[in-house]
Amino acid sequence: MKQHLLSIDDLAIDAVDALFVRAQELSGGPGFRAPVRHAALLFFETSLRTRTGFVSAAHRLGWPTPIEVLERRASASSMPESLRDTVGVVSAYFDTLIVRHDGAIADVVPLVRQGTVVINAGDRGPSSEHPTQALIDVFAMSQLVGEIQDLSIVVAGDLRMRAARSLLNLLARRPPRGLVLVTDPALTEGLELPVALREAPMVDSYDDLERIDALHAIGIPNGSVEENVRSRLRVDARVLARLSARGKVFSPMPVIDEVDRDIRGDPRLAFLEQSALALPVRMAVLESFTL
Amino acid sequence: MKQHLLSIDDLAIDAVDALFVRAQELSGGPGFRAPVRHAALLFFETSLRTRTGFVSAAHRLGWPTPIEVLERRASASSMPESLRDTVGVVSAYFDTLIVRHDGAIADVVPLVRQGTVVINAGDRGPSSEHPTQALIDVFAMSQLVGEIQDLSIVVAGDLRMRAARSLLNLLARRPPRGLVLVTDPALTEGLELPVALREAPMVDSYDDLERIDALHAIGIPNGSVEENVRSRLRVDARVLARLSARGKVFSPMPVIDEVDRDIRGDPRLAFLEQSALALPVRMAVLESFTL
Amino acid sequence: MKQHLLSIDDLAIDAVDALFVRAQELSGGPGFRAPVRHAALLFFETSLRTRTGFVSAAHRLGWPTPIEVLERRASASSMPESLRDTVGVVSAYFDTLIVRHDGAIADVVPLVRQGTVVINAGDRGPSSEHPTQALIDVFAMSQLVGEIQDLSIVVAGDLRMRAARSLLNLLARRPPRGLVLVTDPALTEGLELPVALREAPMVDSYDDLERIDALHAIGIPNGSVEENVRSRLRVDARVLARLSARGKVFSPMPVIDEVDRDIRGDPRLAFLEQSALALPVRMAVLESFTL
Repeated sequence: MKQHLLSIDDLAIDAVDALFVRAQELSGGPGFRAPVRHAALLFFETSLRTRTGFVSAAHRLGWPTPIEVLERRASASSMPESLRDTVGVVSAYFDTLIVRHDGAIADVVPLVRQGTVVINAGDRGPSSEHPTQALIDVFAMSQLVGEIQDLSIVVAGDLRMRAARSLLNLLARRPPRGLVLVTDPALTEGLELPVALREAPMVDSYDDLERIDALHAIGIPNGSVEENVRSRLRVDARVLARLSARGKVFSPMPVIDEVDRDIRGDPRLAFLEQSALALPVRMAVLESFTL
Repeated sequence: MKQHLLSIDDLAIDAVDALFVRAQELSGGPGFRAPVRHAALLFFETSLRTRTGFVSAAHRLGWPTPIEVLERRASASSMPESLRDTVGVVSAYFDTLIVRHDGAIADVVPLVRQGTVVINAGDRGPSSEHPTQALIDVFAMSQLVGEIQDLSIVVAGDLRMRAARSLLNLLARRPPRGLVLVTDPALTEGLELPVALREAPMVDSYDDLERIDALHAIGIPNGSVEENVRSRLRVDARVLARLSARGKVFSPMPVIDEVDRDIRGDPRLAFLEQSALALPVRMAVLESFTL
Repeated sequence: MKQHLLSIDDLAIDAVDALFVRAQELSGGPGFRAPVRHAALLFFETSLRTRTGFVSAAHRLGWPTPIEVLERRASASSMPESLRDTVGVVSAYFDTLIVRHDGAIADVVPLVRQGTVVINAGDRGPSSEHPTQALIDVFAMSQLVGEIQDLSIVVAGDLRMRAARSLLNLLARRPPRGLVLVTDPALTEGLELPVALREAPMVDSYDDLERIDALHAIGIPNGSVEENVRSRLRVDARVLARLSARGKVFSPMPVIDEVDRDIRGDPRLAFLEQSALALPVRMAVLESFTL
């Protein structure tokens, strides 16, 4: 077991399985109490789901409410001291730092005091990751659809996003029955797929896909492509028709226009169930990554 | 018992009485521990008293500190996703959502997951309410002045405000010996009083009132009336002279200019004692509204 | 024992010693639990170290996470009600108010309800103090260098700053073997030293100093002096050469340009160790100042 969770690759596939078993146990009841640890959120970017999700996970482990280290008043850029000093100070006060960095998480780790755990809650840059999101995505598929190895999975959107990178890295090691990537040529500059996935079909529309068991609408950053591309990648009624009988649509959220407004009430959109399963997954992660 | 506390009318008058008995017990000592619940604040508007009051109540029930779901950095209007998604996500993470909405609370409730309790901490619109404030107001009168049925009560200010609506709805079901409403014709457009109170005298000054046991200065929104009206409704030394021997002045606070500066030290102004009694009332509310 | 900790002089020197003994015990292990108290942060100014340090101290005493009373959305100046009302309300909700005031802490104390403890976390004005910082500074010197009475100490920078005032007041009562003050004539207007320190040498450079055991770089407010003065007072390699064999450099942080960039990796800079020792000191303070 590594000390920090920076990349989904910090977890061996056995450790992923063990985490999922634990997450299932934890989703059973609220009575459980891990040894108390003192966590804090070091968030250089805003967040709703990840921030409240980790707080709730800490609550339910019986840990005191993690606070946010960075003031909301001051912008990150007006921070008067070095990252080194800020991280050095707070890593002495807390056992676990849940970090959303506006740069590479690898820049933060060397600044952390020995004995403090870093959980990457989403970073930035060419190898950015969001490892707990990938765990949630795969756990949700296995809970809400079926065993990964039996599933026909589509990952659609800008595959260079951190949530996509972590998810694809995990799927490379926990291969589904089928995997198709749906994206646009305008979104592939600089895209580096895991070696095991370089043979996966990559298409620019859902047109030829059928019997999809799990469709991950991974998102498309605002302004990165023209509306006609956004529209082509949008999940709408015609895309839903391409799902298998048990098929569901997932998303790391937020969902802005990645899903057609007309189908937002469709029960095959599993975003909120997926999001609810984040709780036991994050509990298991916080519990596992302690020293 | 209803699942949510949205309107003061969600509490039968027996339930109000039971809450007050419990609040009195809870004000006795800090040793009590309710089963731990995980609460969060979903506040679309700023708040000092209600926010810190609920946090303190949760603390003293032994619950972990409720966090604020919405970032202070982003304005509510810049929230990139739908209310439906935000509420759907966080209602899976927390057992109790304490909501201050900038619209009608009724718009929030259908978005909440089954099993999550909503406490209305003040909403907006033509039937807006602030039910815990009404409970605090009535509990404070009974603790600091006497039994409601023996009291001569005045409610003064803009009676269309949410705190006034909840208070008057509760007084309609827990009638005092006497009730007079003091307001200005400019503040009555759209005012709908509870049926039981439609015979209550409504006057535009304190001039003919005497032996008031409890005067609620409910507030007047900034800019809604001319200064001469504000001045006429302001609580000053002449108004204090109209209190009975045991009479006190209450307010949901903040008090800006509703009370004359010259009398702010008068011991008959009971705002802070009233505010302190919010703690056991909110503890009893949080404890009661659990599933 | 006084009720509040407003000035370092509120602690008799015996009480300081007892606090340090307790801080050492507390730094031994996380298992300890004080009786639960409910604390809140009333911070009119931003803070990183003091805010997160007190929260962590409360966590580790088993107290629920202190919340911030003041909204980050609203500036302190837009606060719609009086300081009297704000402090009156929240001091009824919490047992301990940790206050960073933008005025004199003495203005806050009379507004606090009987039974609520005020901890001065840094105030403003001609007699401003930061008493816990002074405790941390002296505790850190004794832990990281040696017994205060054996040390040759230099305090450098703007000695009118609150952290300097509290530190010098404490050193006046716990005298080191030697004390030299390094500052600039431009920074001494209005400076009032404790009587016991009025004979301490005051110089405007490090040039004649040798075998310094503990150098406190107390900081220089932005824009208060010309760059040539900042440069003269800056800790650089030549200043480090004036340390004794066991000598270390301390700072209340943040460190902006008070320390030369080229030496920031030098192990004799003890800021982060000093900051880490804040945790047991603040635990001991919170534990001591309870009613």
